[in-house]
Amino acid sequence: MELHYSLCSKRTKGSEIREVLKYTRLPGIISFAGGLPDPSLFPLDDIARISSEVLRDKGFLALQYGPTQGESEMIDALIYHMKMFGENASRENICVTSSSQQGLDLVALTHLDPNDEMVMELPSYLGAIQAFERSGAIMHGVPLEADGMNMDILEELVKRKEKEKIKLRFIYVIPDYQNPAGVVMSLSKRERLIEISKRYQIPIIEDSPYREICFCGEVLPSLWTLSGGEGVIQLKTFSKMLFPGMRLGWITAEPDVISKLALMKQSVDLCTPTFNQLIIARYIMENRMRETIGRAVELYRQKNAVMITALREFMPGYVHWTEPDGGMFLWVTLPEGWNAADMIKTAAEKGVVFVTGRPFHCNEQGANTLRLNYSFPTIQQIRLGIERLAQTIGEYAKP
Amino acid sequence: MELHYSLCSKRTKGSEIREVLKYTRLPGIISFAGGLPDPSLFPLDDIARISSEVLRDKGFLALQYGPTQGESEMIDALIYHMKMFGENASRENICVTSSSQQGLDLVALTHLDPNDEMVMELPSYLGAIQAFERSGAIMHGVPLEADGMNMDILEELVKRKEKEKIKLRFIYVIPDYQNPAGVVMSLSKRERLIEISKRYQIPIIEDSPYREICFCGEVLPSLWTLSGGEGVIQLKTFSKMLFPGMRLGWITAEPDVISKLALMKQSVDLCTPTFNQLIIARYIMENRMRETIGRAVELYRQKNAVMITALREFMPGYVHWTEPDGGMFLWVTLPEGWNAADMIKTAAEKGVVFVTGRPFHCNEQGANTLRLNYSFPTIQQIRLGIERLAQTIGEYAKP
Repeated sequence: MELHYSLCSKRTKGSEIREVLKYTRLPGIISFAGGLPDPSLFPLDDIARISSEVLRDKGFLALQYGPTQGESEMIDALIYHMKMFGENASRENICVTSSSQQGLDLVALTHLDPNDEMVMELPSYLGAIQAFERSGAIMHGVPLEADGMNMDILEELVKRKEKEKIKLRFIYVIPDYQNPAGVVMSLSKRERLIEISKRYQIPIIEDSPYREICFCGEVLPSLWTLSGGEGVIQLKTFSKMLFPGMRLGWITAEPDVISKLALMKQSVDLCTPTFNQLIIARYIMENRMRETIGRAVELYRQKNAVMITALREFMPGYVHWTEPDGGMFLWVTLPEGWNAADMIKTAAEKGVVFVTGRPFHCNEQGANTLRLNYSFPTIQQIRLGIERLAQTIGEYAKP
Repeated sequence: MELHYSLCSKRTKGSEIREVLKYTRLPGIISFAGGLPDPSLFPLDDIARISSEVLRDKGFLALQYGPTQGESEMIDALIYHMKMFGENASRENICVTSSSQQGLDLVALTHLDPNDEMVMELPSYLGAIQAFERSGAIMHGVPLEADGMNMDILEELVKRKEKEKIKLRFIYVIPDYQNPAGVVMSLSKRERLIEISKRYQIPIIEDSPYREICFCGEVLPSLWTLSGGEGVIQLKTFSKMLFPGMRLGWITAEPDVISKLALMKQSVDLCTPTFNQLIIARYIMENRMRETIGRAVELYRQKNAVMITALREFMPGYVHWTEPDGGMFLWVTLPEGWNAADMIKTAAEKGVVFVTGRPFHCNEQGANTLRLNYSFPTIQQIRLGIERLAQTIGEYAKP
């Protein structure tokens, strides 16, 4: 049968990264490609114990349908978790999601029609690009600097669009340990962003998967907190600070927005697994989350340092990289005109794999960039992998 | 901040049923409203044991990201499960979903653009109506008869649309123990539907949550099986035959379709919880699923019989209902011109609640119909609840 697909389906492209991931299964390969947490951090015994307790104490609830917005026990635990990291929210501010990718999906469904225009960092998270691109939206990229999005360029764009009578639907940013670049948006830029958002009445989508993974002891206040909750939709997930296998995230926003998102979620998956919500809620309320995050921060800080040391030791002078203070990634820039995609095969032959930077750019730029993950490989692998990568780059330099 | 929402969001309405569900929390109320399985069937001890085993044996896999199409262990278990119920599929025919509502979401995203036209039964599942309506599609309803969709009316519609040069995107049906009406599509209608589908090149969406819950010992072959797999997308879930709290379903279709759906799923939630997949896969491979379904069939057969007996005993002659041979629902028709929505409040005061039939009609008809669920209430509640409902109807008859 000849099949017809929607425009939405036609706009959904397979990512270049999928191609790369096939190399990650080769024996002996060192992968800097994915964004996977280190499984040695997974609290298997605690989760096994809590799973049994949840089934024993609340099994009939755990295995039944639950409310679309989330189990009340989970919502309370999320509020408790947020408070631990300096953030406030009420129950009506929260919608549990089946992963923060679902948060992006719900934002795309509720906010974007074809040809709507929105703004994101350049580079930005490719899962977000996928979700927004699918809607047929026009994505404007604003360059990212060492302290976050360039606010002058943003304001210029916003003013130009206002003159053109085009309402920008939202500004999407990842302020803390940005994926892919690892940078943090400064306090002054956060304040300026909120000012722009309020003046021009453009909501902010604050994607915040890495905020808790902070190596320097103190994070800046979130956009949600700084804005007083107005005009900010914050997306969160446990995938990075805890583990991804439960697919649990949440959205914090104004009650009206939450109602719209929850209504949309009804048509998307009815509700997030109750079983999973009750397990994680209990884990948080037992105060295990803070300890787990502490262990993650300690391990990733070490891995980050090893990667930076190796980069300094092995990389030629024409290669540049960010040196993040948290999160899971750093961002490498090769000389102008180079194409990181051309190195993938050689790198894989040498036993190392990474993801190219271009798919993180909504404007198809960034061919000379690449992203390195340091949370998943072991410390020994990191050093060896960077050495192999430096060799690959050296060979590419003199063909 | 003044907020702007997408057309997609504006098309997503809160269902009338949400209004009804608030009554289900009143003390002493008997609910025929939802579609919840009986929690006494939940195999809590087995799931607790298997959860621990999965974390012990495969914890690092269970709590990590997994492939978008599903864990291979789960896909193999699904093939095994299908075989048990007379169906064949290969690995490349299957995509795991986070509930069958996600199956509907993925079908809507990949197959429907605004103003696209499609066909469904009248009445049909309201979660499907929600997902398709959201896309801005034009939904054509074809009346349901005691043996399934009226194929003459379907063929007439299909021919008319062909003359108008309009390509119908798909025909959505629930052939086994239909939700809401409880009817089964006859073998001859199944064959005719596939013939129409092939002749006019219109794919079939076969939604099949209830097929396993069969009281008469033998189900008819599925459309997936009868069509030889061509042009059929089958949606399945464990929510009804096992329990809904893990949010696990799957799609069976041709490999090309599966690739498109899985690509879309990437932007929707990346993957379904690995932990949940591994638990259910093991439950299936231990051959517990067949036994659980056997217990469900036995219990629901009994509850169905009690409801039908009570309807016969208490209902006035002008009330009609279906007497299904499986599934969880039966469908009540009141005299022409009546409005079931007007009875909800009185019914709730008398201590019984149901859902009205209108939201199950894509053409806003069906005000004089209602759906009754018999899987969730106890046997004692069913009899008492039908008595209360008959009183409500009697009072409505003579105001």
